Amino acid sequence: MATEGSLQGFESVHRLLSETLPPQLFQEVQRVLLGCNGGKPVQTLSLPAIVTESAQSQNFDVLAYSFSAAEEQLRKPRVVRIGLIQNATVLPTTDPYERQMNSIRERLRTIIEAAGKAGVNVLCLQEAWTMPFAFCTREKSWCEFAESAERGKSTQFIQELARKYNMVIVSPILERDEAHGDTLWNTAVIIGNHGNIIGKHRKNHIPRVGDFNESSYYMEGNTGHPVFETEFGKIAVNICYGRHHTLNWQAFGMNGAEIVFNPSATVGDLSEPMWPIEARNAAIANTYFVGAINRVGTESFPNAFTSGDGKPEHKDFGHFYGSSYVAGPDASCTPSLSRCRDGLMVADCDLNLCQQVKDKWGFRLTARYELYAKFFNEYIKPDFKPQVVRDAFLDSPKENGVY
Amino acid sequence: MATEGSLQGFESVHRLLSETLPPQLFQEVQRVLLGCNGGKPVQTLSLPAIVTESAQSQNFDVLAYSFSAAEEQLRKPRVVRIGLIQNATVLPTTDPYERQMNSIRERLRTIIEAAGKAGVNVLCLQEAWTMPFAFCTREKSWCEFAESAERGKSTQFIQELARKYNMVIVSPILERDEAHGDTLWNTAVIIGNHGNIIGKHRKNHIPRVGDFNESSYYMEGNTGHPVFETEFGKIAVNICYGRHHTLNWQAFGMNGAEIVFNPSATVGDLSEPMWPIEARNAAIANTYFVGAINRVGTESFPNAFTSGDGKPEHKDFGHFYGSSYVAGPDASCTPSLSRCRDGLMVADCDLNLCQQVKDKWGFRLTARYELYAKFFNEYIKPDFKPQVVRDAFLDSPKENGVY
Repeated sequence: MATEGSLQGFESVHRLLSETLPPQLFQEVQRVLLGCNGGKPVQTLSLPAIVTESAQSQNFDVLAYSFSAAEEQLRKPRVVRIGLIQNATVLPTTDPYERQMNSIRERLRTIIEAAGKAGVNVLCLQEAWTMPFAFCTREKSWCEFAESAERGKSTQFIQELARKYNMVIVSPILERDEAHGDTLWNTAVIIGNHGNIIGKHRKNHIPRVGDFNESSYYMEGNTGHPVFETEFGKIAVNICYGRHHTLNWQAFGMNGAEIVFNPSATVGDLSEPMWPIEARNAAIANTYFVGAINRVGTESFPNAFTSGDGKPEHKDFGHFYGSSYVAGPDASCTPSLSRCRDGLMVADCDLNLCQQVKDKWGFRLTARYELYAKFFNEYIKPDFKPQVVRDAFLDSPKENGVY
Repeated sequence: MATEGSLQGFESVHRLLSETLPPQLFQEVQRVLLGCNGGKPVQTLSLPAIVTESAQSQNFDVLAYSFSAAEEQLRKPRVVRIGLIQNATVLPTTDPYERQMNSIRERLRTIIEAAGKAGVNVLCLQEAWTMPFAFCTREKSWCEFAESAERGKSTQFIQELARKYNMVIVSPILERDEAHGDTLWNTAVIIGNHGNIIGKHRKNHIPRVGDFNESSYYMEGNTGHPVFETEFGKIAVNICYGRHHTLNWQAFGMNGAEIVFNPSATVGDLSEPMWPIEARNAAIANTYFVGAINRVGTESFPNAFTSGDGKPEHKDFGHFYGSSYVAGPDASCTPSLSRCRDGLMVADCDLNLCQQVKDKWGFRLTARYELYAKFFNEYIKPDFKPQVVRDAFLDSPKENGVY
């Protein structure tokens, strides 16, 4: 299978090209593929030795970059250090659930501590980080992994680390909503840098594709498009499949987001070619920073399931290809983390860049929102008539080939 | 300057990598960068020798690919052959206007004839193909290049070729609107395959960025988001800067477009890193084919102008980097045409792929349009209140560093 072969082949396209191309050509290809920030590729950032040593000894990838903005006369730079973590689950899915949960927490503790020591201000974890991505099975026993967003053990665990490192942490979990009859949601909990809960957001768009049988477990979110105003800027969370929906990205931007995280879990051939496109397009189109995070590894389940593709039953979902990255509003982009290992991405983002790019490119200015509000109002009517201009020749009688 | 250097370096990233990487690695990088169509890279297509010979002798690039779809039980394949043309102007901008116009038409005739002989069904030319992209100058004499969409010489010229080759041709020109007081528009004229005029579309979003001083010449279009139903499928045109507006792409899709062309004129460092992202994201997000076309070459003007960037006055706008390509709804994509030469891209598109991908990925199904209609209705109100959840700690008094 192509994906498996590629795992042996290279950790990321960027690293492969940097090792293979002559330096001058690499520089040009890098410019076309990853853009420029202030006329240069996004610059690498030095991290404390304790962080790189931890990455080495604990076997996780670490990359760090810096997005700069121009100096302004009336505002100081607003540099926020963001972090993204991608990770595989630790124990087999056949192990007792509590042991699985604890092992993931302990693995995460190592990487979150590294982020804290790297001085990260706002950190985001991957989608449903507390559990294997078990929705492919359609089995309901996995619902046991759901927790209260406000009082669950995972939230308490994150609160402790947020407080310890003065770090905002976005914690995407499977939420058990006790206040509404024990229903489930796919929820990102926003933990403030004082360990407080700022709020939560529930995934807006739920996939009905391949093995993503999430609509068997939870519904479309009912929390709108909230932007969370933190000590380190205005952030929002577009959870996983919402990245295919340009409107979802846009509404967060219209509500004022400066950084939007996209915690995801997506696999191999299905989506890997989309991955470098969608979150990056969102950063450009909405003039904000995006942190795109994808799970890593292959998870095997005890009972076989089918994928609705006519192929034999099987026990795994495919390879989650990691490749987390940060994209800037000026079309610049970092290389991505490993396609096969756990990883921590650190990026300094001068939030002043957002307004600077807005002023330069004028996308909001020229957006004609009234036109689209009107269009959408028409579209949602059951008797909506699309604006189609039909070639008259399609309806005129043809005589001997002459119209 | 990076762009100029790169012109000597490579014609396209794809060609550079195919010449430099070991074959197996190239295959994997290609999969990640350009996706798969039916499990393989988009396949190359053979063209008649007369076409490739013409490209050789007349010095234009030619590439041809085929996007396939799965077989269905109830529908036959609907393969449409589309064509994109990118070209430089021919004569200096100091030459008499009529000679400039004629020379472009004759150059275009050669490439359009090649498209016709290649069996293209629907062809699209670049933005304002009839003229140098003179808006950077802010001089009004260039308005002489504007023509009637219905009766101008350029339209007549295209009508003749459309009839000759039974080919729908999208002809983007600077329109002189006599019926409304001689005002100007940036307009795509849709010429049917019988030489008839099916309709026209006027550019919806007008840039206020860098040297794109187009808002000094014409206004935002008043033709909505029309889809033109031709003998060869439903097509629409997102003109140039409209590609930065995801709503513009989306409205064409909601009106039923199966192929959307994006005739453009954009330069060097400013936008080249965005170019492979935006049109391709639109194809994915809206589940249709996109043909993205960019002008080629560097155009020098008689009188110097400034760019609002504090740099000295100058006479050219930068290098138009070509790189036209076709993107499929399944995230597959062709390599792009040359960054420095005229070119013809031919692509067979089985339009059945659109509905197949809609059924597979379900983006329309899961789009929640009602939510966004409501959101936009609120947003356009002057007293719109963004949905912001503010960390309560930002407002609580801080005492000795303890909250």
